[in-house]
Order: sequence, then structure tokens, then C-alpha cells
Amino acid sequence: MQTVYLVSGPAGVGKSTTSQALAKALPNSAYISGDAVSHMHVNGREKPWESRSELLLIWQNIWRLTSNFITHGVDVVVDYVTFPEEAKWLQKQLIALNTNVVYVVLWTDKSTLLQRDQTRLPQHQMGERCLILIDEFENSGLEPRHVKDTSSHRVENLNEIVDDIRSNDRYRLKSE
Amino acid sequence: MQTVYLVSGPAGVGKSTTSQALAKALPNSAYISGDAVSHMHVNGREKPWESRSELLLIWQNIWRLTSNFITHGVDVVVDYVTFPEEAKWLQKQLIALNTNVVYVVLWTDKSTLLQRDQTRLPQHQMGERCLILIDEFENSGLEPRHVKDTSSHRVENLNEIVDDIRSNDRYRLKSE
Repeated sequence: MQTVYLVSGPAGVGKSTTSQALAKALPNSAYISGDAVSHMHVNGREKPWESRSELLLIWQNIWRLTSNFITHGVDVVVDYVTFPEEAKWLQKQLIALNTNVVYVVLWTDKSTLLQRDQTRLPQHQMGERCLILIDEFENSGLEPRHVKDTSSHRVENLNEIVDDIRSNDRYRLKSE
Repeated sequence: MQTVYLVSGPAGVGKSTTSQALAKALPNSAYISGDAVSHMHVNGREKPWESRSELLLIWQNIWRLTSNFITHGVDVVVDYVTFPEEAKWLQKQLIALNTNVVYVVLWTDKSTLLQRDQTRLPQHQMGERCLILIDEFENSGLEPRHVKDTSSHRVENLNEIVDDIRSNDRYRLKSE
């Protein structure tokens, strides 16, 4: 039985670092960056948070890639801002493949997120959007058991976080 | 009617530069790097030129992404070492979407390819594999009308190459 790991959370929380470490810890794994998938659309692209059809295109692409990997016996790590509704949608698309879906939302305090945002290159800074994302997660009906608070963690603890995501049952998305 | 552009050719011939310029010239476009899709598979990945199942996984991923983009009205540029059989296979998968498939194999002389290979970072140099690829194309049943010789072209001619790929009917893959 293959597993899809949805590593989510607001910008600056460490999704990419954590997802890549997770993919490297699994014996047969794929790493899908939602941002990379999103930017495959070159001209005509709309901002996914302003356009439902752009967001749908991205999720359909993530779904199809995930589905192919699972079919080939490969576990998948998806690194993207994923809300509970999207996690459930993906789980539903994959139902025939009998797949585990692990949904973890990395979290830390607002001031840390804003600090990290400012250390990025200007063109990658999210500014306001950063705070809006936090609010969106807080109003998304997210169940606390999917949240992993990393406030007290340092880079040295990356392995611990990865192990926790792999082994802790509380992140598993229940079938509806 | 949407178009899929398969920009192929041996390593070092300018696939990426040409594909990206092509994607930027189209009003609504996606750019799919076959290498990027291939490297989504992190652990357990085999070399696609040594493993048929790895190559199949890559092409299935390219197909599903392409199919989604086409369905959303987006033209697609695929930047990958694509042989005639693979181009025909993709065309067949897309048949229900009534899609144009443009297949162009960029070409130049061996010495230029080997020179360019040596200007790459050591970890990206292909060495022998470079020459093997040239032989593989020469024995692939490739029709001359799909070949675009870029030997006499310089960077300044990139727009000309892009215009040629967009407008020259000879690169269009015929339906079988």
C-alpha cells in the first residue's frame, strides 16, 4: 500500500526543506513541488489564489502525477499550500488505488513566518499574502491533529520531524 | 485546436533554450521539462535509458500533464529527448483531444555537441552518452522533415528558429 504525504502550511514554515528530507528518507519516492507544477504554465497563467480554474489545473496535474507514481509503486511527497478541502479532494480521486493519505500542516508563530519571509529574495517575498494564508488556514476547518507545530524545532531536528510524519498515525486522513 | 510542440534532439543541441523561448512566444502556454519530470522520482529511480519501466513512467507523466493543459486550452512545449516512436505514442494518447502535434528534432554536427558538453559543469557532462544519443537518433527511423539543422544558427537567430517551429508545416506529425 503506497502513501501520499501532503506537506502543507503557510509560506516560510519549512515545507520544501521538510518535504525534500522526507522524500530522501523513503526507499522509493517522488517529490512533487506544487509551485513547480504551477509554474509549468508560462503564458496565460493566473494567480491560483485568485483563479479557481488555475487552481483546478494545478490540482489535476498534481493528482495525475501522484496517481502515476502510486501505480508504479512509488510513494509521493507533495509540497504545496494544501487546505483540508483539497486534501480530501485528492484522497477521493485516489480512492480506487487504495492509498494512504498523510496530511500534515506545518505551523509556527506569525512573527517567525514574517521574519523568514524577509530573508527571501525580494521577488520571492510574500509580504501580506503570508498573513492572509495564516488566516485562511485558521478558517479552513483544519483539525488540530493534522497540525505539526515546529516553533521549538531547529534544523538539527529535521530527522525527528520526518520520522514523526512517517510514523505518527494522527496525520492520516480518514476516509469519508 | 491546441498544439503540442515536442522539441527533441541530442544533448547540447539547445533544446531547453529553444523550448523556453517557444513557450514565451505563445499566448497561452506550458513548458514541460522531461528532465524535471524524470527527476521528480527521487529514490528508487533508474536511468530511463536503461529501464523501460522508468521511461514509461516519465512518458505517462508527460502525457497526463499535457492532456490536462490541452483540456484547459493551453498549448504545450515538451523539452525532452524524444524519439519518433515516443512522439507517435504521445500523439495516439491525445487522439481524443483533437490536438496538433509538432515534432522537431534539433540537430547540429558532432563536434559542436561534444564541445558544448565540455562547457557544462562536470556533474552535468554526458560524455559518451552524447555520441550514443546521436547514433540512436540516426537509427530511429526519423524522417528528415522533422529535423531542424541549427549548425549555422547563433543565439541571435533564436526568434527565427521559434518562428519556423511555429509556422512550418513540415514538422507536423501526420496522423497514422
